[in-house]
Parts: sequence; structure tokens; C-alpha cells
Amino acid sequence: MLQSMLESGRLAQEVVARSNASQRNKILEKMAELLKEREALILEANRKDLENSSDLPPSLKKRLGLSASQIARLIDGIGVVIRQPDPLGQGEGQRRLANGLSIEAVHVPLGVIGLIFESRPGVAIEATALIVKSGNAAILRGGHEALESIRVLVECWQDAISASGFNRNLVQAILDPDRRHVTDLMHLNGLDLLIPRGGPGLIQRVIREATVPVIETGVGNCHVYVDESADITMAVDIVTNAKVSNPGVCNAAETVLVHRNIAEKFLPVLEQQLRRHDVVLHADSESRSYLSFAMPATEEDFATEYLSLDLAVKVVQDLDDALRHIAQFGTKHSEAIVTNSYSHGERFLNTVDAAVVYWNASTRFSDGYEFGMGGEVGISTQKLHARGPMGLGALTTWKWIARGQGQIRI
Amino acid sequence: MLQSMLESGRLAQEVVARSNASQRNKILEKMAELLKEREALILEANRKDLENSSDLPPSLKKRLGLSASQIARLIDGIGVVIRQPDPLGQGEGQRRLANGLSIEAVHVPLGVIGLIFESRPGVAIEATALIVKSGNAAILRGGHEALESIRVLVECWQDAISASGFNRNLVQAILDPDRRHVTDLMHLNGLDLLIPRGGPGLIQRVIREATVPVIETGVGNCHVYVDESADITMAVDIVTNAKVSNPGVCNAAETVLVHRNIAEKFLPVLEQQLRRHDVVLHADSESRSYLSFAMPATEEDFATEYLSLDLAVKVVQDLDDALRHIAQFGTKHSEAIVTNSYSHGERFLNTVDAAVVYWNASTRFSDGYEFGMGGEVGISTQKLHARGPMGLGALTTWKWIARGQGQIRI
Repeated sequence: MLQSMLESGRLAQEVVARSNASQRNKILEKMAELLKEREALILEANRKDLENSSDLPPSLKKRLGLSASQIARLIDGIGVVIRQPDPLGQGEGQRRLANGLSIEAVHVPLGVIGLIFESRPGVAIEATALIVKSGNAAILRGGHEALESIRVLVECWQDAISASGFNRNLVQAILDPDRRHVTDLMHLNGLDLLIPRGGPGLIQRVIREATVPVIETGVGNCHVYVDESADITMAVDIVTNAKVSNPGVCNAAETVLVHRNIAEKFLPVLEQQLRRHDVVLHADSESRSYLSFAMPATEEDFATEYLSLDLAVKVVQDLDDALRHIAQFGTKHSEAIVTNSYSHGERFLNTVDAAVVYWNASTRFSDGYEFGMGGEVGISTQKLHARGPMGLGALTTWKWIARGQGQIRI
Repeated sequence: MLQSMLESGRLAQEVVARSNASQRNKILEKMAELLKEREALILEANRKDLENSSDLPPSLKKRLGLSASQIARLIDGIGVVIRQPDPLGQGEGQRRLANGLSIEAVHVPLGVIGLIFESRPGVAIEATALIVKSGNAAILRGGHEALESIRVLVECWQDAISASGFNRNLVQAILDPDRRHVTDLMHLNGLDLLIPRGGPGLIQRVIREATVPVIETGVGNCHVYVDESADITMAVDIVTNAKVSNPGVCNAAETVLVHRNIAEKFLPVLEQQLRRHDVVLHADSESRSYLSFAMPATEEDFATEYLSLDLAVKVVQDLDDALRHIAQFGTKHSEAIVTNSYSHGERFLNTVDAAVVYWNASTRFSDGYEFGMGGEVGISTQKLHARGPMGLGALTTWKWIARGQGQIRI
């Protein structure tokens, strides 16, 4: 089954790859229209999914649910993708060799992209809009709990694609809940890219088992380091936002590191603020001397991506100590420093090895929509090909094109 | 052993990553000087390698041998790398979000790069120059037949690095011939990239087994398609050059596809020219009717990267037939069309899915030195991260840097 999806996806994709940006934008415009027209239908399908998943934990239910305002935001995201410049066709590195051969690297689509995701049905809109705009085909595999939502959304895509004069197989979904299809997708010879979006279990399995090209996304054990010279109000706001605004996502903070010289002033204010949001603190012994309700932290706490209202706390000696801790426990996702020192800020930005590094801002901005990409297909935590929120550029490759007049190599 | 090489390489690399381009260029300038000064020493070591490898086949011996003129060319390549703009530090995608947060993607080195290569000791100069200029560390593993040459070259690197005020561990080589080290390198947790350069056996093994990030290089089953409207002299020159100028390399042509309407005129001229170079033709039945000395070609011939003075020949019905053949048998490396038709030329360039596509030029130009990169770390045949000759850019990643004034996500 997957082999024939791959082939029909590729046939559809080869035509779209040769289309111009306004033809591809037409698909997105039509999709935005259909999402508005069929809003009731989509919400109804989502309600069915929620009913069928009454035994899900609340955090997963929250991800699964779609509201009218979320649909409006997703439509807004499609608009941003439409307004992005065409990622295809632009030549780079143009040069004429001494023998007159003219070469350039031209951006082209990757081809057929597989996307495995869990719960959040909005991914089928957000990621697919980027895949289509960049001239690629999509094979979507969502969580079985979101089956009805995905079915309706993919129908919207296929109708938008047909209405724009392209082949509906450009966007396909595996709707059969059999888990065997996930394994097959990981081994689908010829698939140009497979992106897993979901929990660490899914991602690690894909990285380990897949024989097709994969981009690792999403595991985020993110830190906020509060330096000696930090503005305390700013630091409390940033840590609170990074922890509580959406604890279940990869760009949420999991550990706060506090410079020894500011701990006594900072930690009680932070605790007071976080208790209003029911955050549970897991703190090392030094920081517990400034906290009233913290549990003792173990090494394991520092290694854990809680994805919940838990936060590890540690007092560090200085910036170097913080950098060492982040190098040891970080997952190269998003890391932040709060400081008023120019040299410390720049040193943190230059030294920390992560997809996104922040100075005086919340880690929660690591997101394609926030970065102005109109959405993302995932947040890459690897160094090759794409890093951080993956927008249109991450979905292209290039080929070198050489035009000559009979040049041979001497 | 490899773990400690990785750690000492990383320590050296972290310092170089923060250096400016003129500091890194100083290493390359010193290396160019040392290669001149120690030429006799290098040639002597290479002579030892050749003596110890008297049982090697001639094509491998040719690769293993270093001459004074090759050293001069490698020094020239270092000069080109020196003159390349700094690949590090340049920001891209700078923008200020509506909330005032300023973000940009800054190019940074990948880290520690492993390079496994066979025979050609020049790789230890050419590839390493790019690795050093781009702020990375190298762990080199050459073929055991090139051991003495590599030992001397890596000493040159380490002396050039010390003389420039950096730690010599920036460039290290595994000189113990035990093959276990190759396996260990493929599983060296923390290695940022492993590039295999060599025969298909090595490359496929690394792709299959490695658990560290890998870039697939080099298998090239390259075609030249001679279209109906081709200039016959040009086509003969291009096919001859693509086949005979260096048959043992990945950008050499392995199959010539000939449009039915030009076959009768073209093939006898081609055969006459290729016989002077002792090329053995393996031809399908239709082309054999125009050839005097060709052997029958089987499906296997079309799938084979000969890397020798053998060439497969096939008559095709038209451009579409040629495109189908290339899609079926090509390895996405380098493909060429010879035609005088604008529409056919552009269609070939746009349709063929390969790292480099040529119109009226030899496939032999797929090479970092020819492309003006000063050399290459390999030729990527994959779509992710790097495609075609890999120069400085392919050895960098980026991180997103965000500078704020306390921004939190609402």
C-alpha cells in the first residue's frame, strides 16, 4: 500500500515541482477557503475523536482538541506561508568557470515527505502547507486518536489541490490505524524524508530504526540560566512563561539554573510566582535553602524533559558552571540566559550548542509560527540540513546546473 | 582511544570555532609553506607506501601515488580555500519580531568531523583544509596502504596548527591499521559527522551501520545522453572525456545514451575515437548494428559503475526514454545531455534528479576544485544537508540567536 502511495505521490509531486509559486499558492488559498467553509464539519469530526478518546490524559486531550479560534490561527498561518517568497528555483553560487562553463545551485523540492505525528490534528494543516508550498508531496500518518479530524482535513487538502488543477495524491494520509504502517513508512525505500513529530519514544524509535532519511525533532530539555546581574522581575517573568504557558511542548523550560550571588533574592520571588501556577519544584540542596516547598532534586531530574508543571532548580557557581550543566544535560533545543552583562550574554550565545539560544527572552519562542515562517514541519535538534524551526527552506534541496558549449576537463 | 581523540579534538575545536578567519587562514598558510618545505619527506613516505603495496592493482597504485606536481596542485587548492570568504558567523534570516525580539541564524562549525578514505593521500590535505577553515576538527582514517604518507601529512597539519597558536589535536589521524577502528568511528557517540570517501563497499557499509550522522558520497553511475540535434564532434569529445580522462573516479561516465535518429552517424565516429583509448563497449542490440567491436550489454551493464575503460551504450527512442533510463539506473550523481535544442536542454536540466546536471559539458567537472571551492570533502549524492561537491558551506550548521528585552510568549 505504501509503495503505491509513494509512487502516486511522486507523480503528483513531479508536476507541482515544475509549477510556479502562484500556482502553488492557489492550492493554499483554496485550502484556507475550505477550512472556513467546512469549519463545522471539522469541529464535528474533532468532537468524535475526543469522544472516542475519553480515556486519554488531559494534556493529550488538550492537544487533540481543535477550536474555532485554533482553526482561525491555522488559516492565518496559511496566509503567512502564501506571503513567503518562493523557496524554489532561486539560484545560488552562480559562477562562470575559467573555461566558460556556467554553474549554479538551484533550489528544488526534496520530493515525497513522510510525516508521523501524534495527537495534534493542526499539524496536518500547518506542516502540509509548508510541504505543498515548497513543491513536495506529503504522506501523513497521524495518531489514531485524531483519525476523524485528519480524514476531514486531508479531504480539504485534496479538494483544494484538485480545484487548483493538480493531482489530489499530492497530499495523502495513512488512515488505517494498524501500527505496521509506521514501521513500513520507516523503511519505505525511495521516500525522500521522514519527519517524526511527537514524544521522545516515537522520535528515538524512528531515528534508530528508519532506513530512509530522517530529521530528528523535538526533544527539549531546555534551561533558563539566571545570571548574577539579571533583572529579577524579568527573570521571574521569563522562567514563569517558559515553564507554565504550555508545559507539554518541547520549547518549555525544564530546569532553571541560578547564579549563587542572586539565588537568595531571586528564588523566593520565583517560588511565590510559580506556586500560583501549581508548579512543583525539584531543587538541589543549595537552592532549597532559599525555597519553602521544593522537593529534593536528583541527577535524574536534571536529565528529564518533564513536559508537565514540574521544574528542576539548581544553584550554579558562575556562568561556566551553567554552561557545563547545559552541555551535560541539554538536548540542543532551546537555551536561555537572563543577564544584564554584555560579555556574559554574548558568551552564552556563542558557546551554547543548541538550535536556538536566547538572551533575555523566553525559550517558548522556538516555533515556526513565532519565527515568522507561518508554521513549521517540526523543530530540528540535529545539526545537519535543518536546525530549529523548520520552514520552507528546510523542505528543499538543490541541484547544481551547468550550461556549457562543449567544455571537457583537461 | 577514539573517545579520547573525540574529546581532545572537541577541546581544540571549541577554541578554533571562536577564532576569526585570519587566524584560521594562518594555519592554512603555514600548511602550504610546510608542504613546500617538506616535499622531499612527503614523497619519500609515499614511496614507502608504494613499495609496501606492490601487490595493489595499477588503478589503486595510481591513486596512492603522490607526485611533486600533485603536491603543487594541492598547495594551490589551499590557496583557493584561503581566499574563500569565511563560512562562519554570517547571519541569515535576520528579522525583528513584532514584539521586538531580534532573531538571526548564524553559521557555526559542525564540530568534530570523521573522514574515512581510501588510497588517495591528497584527501588528507584537500578535505582537511576545508575542515580547518570552517572551524571544525578532523579525525582522519586513511587506507592502511597510505599510512606513511598520512603520518607525514598529519604531522605537517599539527605543526602548522601549533605554529598558529592552536592545539595540534585539531587534526588527528587513526594510524593503527586495525579495522576495528572503522567500526568504532561509525559508532563514536558525539561525533558530529562522518564522511566516507571511497568505493561503494565502504560507503554502503557506513550508510548501513553508522549510528552517527553520515553524508553519503560518491557512487556515480553517470550518463551522457546524446540527443537528436547534438553536434557530433562535441558529443564525441564530451563522451570521450567523460569516459577516459580518469575512468576510476565517480564523475566518469559509465553509459552513453544515443537518440535513435543520430545513432547511425554518431556511434561509428564515437567508436573510432574510443578505440584509440582502448575503451570496451557493451552495447544493446540496436546500437550494435552501428558498431563493429561491441560486446552485448545486459541489464547488469546499465546498472554497473565500471570505474574502468568500459562503457555501456544504448539507443533510446527520444528524450523521454533517456530520462526514464536515467531515473531507473542513475545514482543521482552527475548526468549530461548533449543537444542543440533549447527545450530539450532545459527539460533535461529541470527533470533529472541528480546532484549535478550538465548541458553540453563533460560530467568530469563535478569536483570541488573545478567548481572553485578549492577542493572538496566529498561529493554528496544525498539530498539532505549537502548535494554535489562539498565545500566550506557543507561543513557548517547554524544556530538561531535571539536577543530580547524580556520578551515572553503570550
